Amino acid sequence: MTVQEATPEIAIIGGGIVGLVLAAGLTRRGVRVNLYEQARNFREIGAGIGFTRNTVRCMEKINPAVVTALRSGGAVNVSLDQQDPKSYLRWIDGYGQQREDGPMYQKPLLKLDAGVKGWETVRRDQFLDDLVKVIPDGVVHLQKRLDTIEDNEDADKVFLNFTDGTRVEADAVIACDGIKSRTRQLLLGLENPASFPQYTHKVAYRALIPMDKVLGAIGEYKTFRQHMHVGPNAHLIHYPVNTNTIGATVVISDPNEWPQDKPTTARASRKDVAEALANWCTPVRNLVDLFPEELDQWALFDLFEYPVPKYNKGRVCLVGDAAHASSPHHGAGASFGIEDALCLSTLMSEVTMDLREHRTSKASALRTAFETYDKVRRTRTQWLVNSSRRVCDLFQQPEWADPAKRVKTESCFEEVKDRSFKIWHFDSTAMVDETIHEYRTGTRPSAKMNGINSTNGVKEANGTK
Amino acid sequence: MTVQEATPEIAIIGGGIVGLVLAAGLTRRGVRVNLYEQARNFREIGAGIGFTRNTVRCMEKINPAVVTALRSGGAVNVSLDQQDPKSYLRWIDGYGQQREDGPMYQKPLLKLDAGVKGWETVRRDQFLDDLVKVIPDGVVHLQKRLDTIEDNEDADKVFLNFTDGTRVEADAVIACDGIKSRTRQLLLGLENPASFPQYTHKVAYRALIPMDKVLGAIGEYKTFRQHMHVGPNAHLIHYPVNTNTIGATVVISDPNEWPQDKPTTARASRKDVAEALANWCTPVRNLVDLFPEELDQWALFDLFEYPVPKYNKGRVCLVGDAAHASSPHHGAGASFGIEDALCLSTLMSEVTMDLREHRTSKASALRTAFETYDKVRRTRTQWLVNSSRRVCDLFQQPEWADPAKRVKTESCFEEVKDRSFKIWHFDSTAMVDETIHEYRTGTRPSAKMNGINSTNGVKEANGTK
Repeated sequence: MTVQEATPEIAIIGGGIVGLVLAAGLTRRGVRVNLYEQARNFREIGAGIGFTRNTVRCMEKINPAVVTALRSGGAVNVSLDQQDPKSYLRWIDGYGQQREDGPMYQKPLLKLDAGVKGWETVRRDQFLDDLVKVIPDGVVHLQKRLDTIEDNEDADKVFLNFTDGTRVEADAVIACDGIKSRTRQLLLGLENPASFPQYTHKVAYRALIPMDKVLGAIGEYKTFRQHMHVGPNAHLIHYPVNTNTIGATVVISDPNEWPQDKPTTARASRKDVAEALANWCTPVRNLVDLFPEELDQWALFDLFEYPVPKYNKGRVCLVGDAAHASSPHHGAGASFGIEDALCLSTLMSEVTMDLREHRTSKASALRTAFETYDKVRRTRTQWLVNSSRRVCDLFQQPEWADPAKRVKTESCFEEVKDRSFKIWHFDSTAMVDETIHEYRTGTRPSAKMNGINSTNGVKEANGTK
Repeated sequence: MTVQEATPEIAIIGGGIVGLVLAAGLTRRGVRVNLYEQARNFREIGAGIGFTRNTVRCMEKINPAVVTALRSGGAVNVSLDQQDPKSYLRWIDGYGQQREDGPMYQKPLLKLDAGVKGWETVRRDQFLDDLVKVIPDGVVHLQKRLDTIEDNEDADKVFLNFTDGTRVEADAVIACDGIKSRTRQLLLGLENPASFPQYTHKVAYRALIPMDKVLGAIGEYKTFRQHMHVGPNAHLIHYPVNTNTIGATVVISDPNEWPQDKPTTARASRKDVAEALANWCTPVRNLVDLFPEELDQWALFDLFEYPVPKYNKGRVCLVGDAAHASSPHHGAGASFGIEDALCLSTLMSEVTMDLREHRTSKASALRTAFETYDKVRRTRTQWLVNSSRRVCDLFQQPEWADPAKRVKTESCFEEVKDRSFKIWHFDSTAMVDETIHEYRTGTRPSAKMNGINSTNGVKEANGTK
């Protein structure tokens, strides 16, 4: 067996941020990778994206070139404050009509300190452009839309068939094909509701606005610092995405249905947004006035109602939005996909070392690796899907409109803090250790004789302190 | 000024667990205390009560005799396991009809390790009996129902008038007068909805059942170990309260209103409970069969809809349920009152030391102490009220009845774990430090000139790690 043959060959489906970061991690570890992207070019939707310190640490572990790409993509601190290098997230009252010191006043509700360079933001398209350059030549294959996967227990290889009639083989498939994942449909079957994302009953409107215009609308303090404005049935977030642009997103509740077959973006007008926020504070209305007259309305879908029961099957696994598509209200969807990518990069290193020492067969090692990935990642990532729904409900409590309910509505922020810290304080070093431990436990000969683990499937957590 | 005069004289309103624990803490610190209880005798309602390790640590700091009272009251580990000294909390499927190995099978959902002696349970009445013995003679005054409080800015003393026409004075009033607190009404006014607890739309049925009978109903494993059975619109918890008795509580959703003027307990029959749980697992139905044929139905009220805006006013403050009456679903209501009592015991030590050194006036020191108490305790305790509602919603998800929603419903337990750990992992030493720091900051001369603190009232939390 040559070194080449001993190394697993992985097919990555999907060239979004998570697929590319994973490819950067695997190629760096000497794993043979082919990445198949259905589009003609790489193209990122949405406006800005932010990463907390713990996610940047994951990127460093995956491949330091990913961090270089983030920074060369123009990443800036979410708070552009000459006096203070720390990042803060701020929640303020977007609706209340209290007038403490004039029409620009909005009551502060929560301020979270994320540390120095603790929340870096970047334009998605710029980050993606620089990320593509990290991937070695020959890895990426564009215009390849997955049709079917053949993963037969007794076959050495997995086969992928594309809609253009071509067919390739791989030792395993890692699907980063997003919220509308074809791979998820293939693993679960079309009769499983988890094969399709569900409407969250929220629509989003996103804009990139020149900073000099925003200054006049909301004042210098808010322009240079991220702010989340909360209120009844809607919220608005804005933050600098580079040194001269503000990214702003409005999310509005929608009681109506959004049919599965309708495109998830629709044309809309600024008037729709302005009407929904007509009774809000002056700075909010000023900022909405700077949105383009015509813009896209994004229907937000996720996997909350029908989560994926298991992220792996045989030599195929689901990663990022394909596994746990979340609404965007924690701003952590891509971050959790990057945590997934670190888990899988770690596992592919383990598999490669095992194969080099002839400890196991490729197929068996890869199946155990994906079983481990599911075990390590599923609970936390499904929590995010639930939590993102939950914090949106808290941001958009209808009772913000009722002054008699102020004490109650404002009491939600201890929970918002806890949920944010659970995301930010993620210990990626501990996850790497856990991943290696679980994988090695899974590959021990005794593990295979033992059909059921000792906790009988129940989640067990140690609460001693 | 004599030593006697330098020591603050505190009136405690209410002789429940929290009032008595606080009295034990203050008398130990040499503070003069009078405790006024409206009842003819001490009497505790409810069945069992449990305390995690961190609450026992609070008791130790308040007065070690409280821990002695707990243990002499017959406290036992929530898991009576000869092989394992640790306490565990377990959540299992009370409804699902899966039959893995017979009719007694119930799917385990979450197991939390609370450490050695990590959750001690006791009969409320037995604990109270032994707690009363800790209080020095002359402190307790029974059959004293509070009518009004006079706290005039320019008066040296606060005056309390009781419904029997008697009148006493004190330097300050600490109200532990429970969910229907008269003191809360006096502080907020009857027009404030927070003066009255609100119906949570849950009713509870409690029973104490001899252990030998329970053994036959649910088997040995579950009898000796706490279990929370979850299912659609109801849940059931049982645990040993001493070596021969099981305490069991059923909580059922009730869509109807419960008028404010109706007594919060009503007569009910076992049949009501059995009908609500008719489709549940065999062990659940077996256990309900052991409830008394006639029993009380407890309407559960709390302060969720209208929380108390501030826990202090002048020289009066609200503690425990008077400040933050919670539904009982975390089993932490009394624990949070005991945390309050530690905060106030710490503050009264500080006040006593300041007065001994003539640093300030009694009235000013006590006002600052109560201001500090509100600052240190309000956020966490209002979080508990919200969280208890939230976990009950998770335990009682109607979707437990829908097999297609199983993955979603079961995904709630990461949140249940986080919320439990936030309660159990409370660092009482850090709270004591924070209390002293905040009090001393508040008594510095500069603090009084500064009308507003630097964060402009916004909660700020440091998320750096």
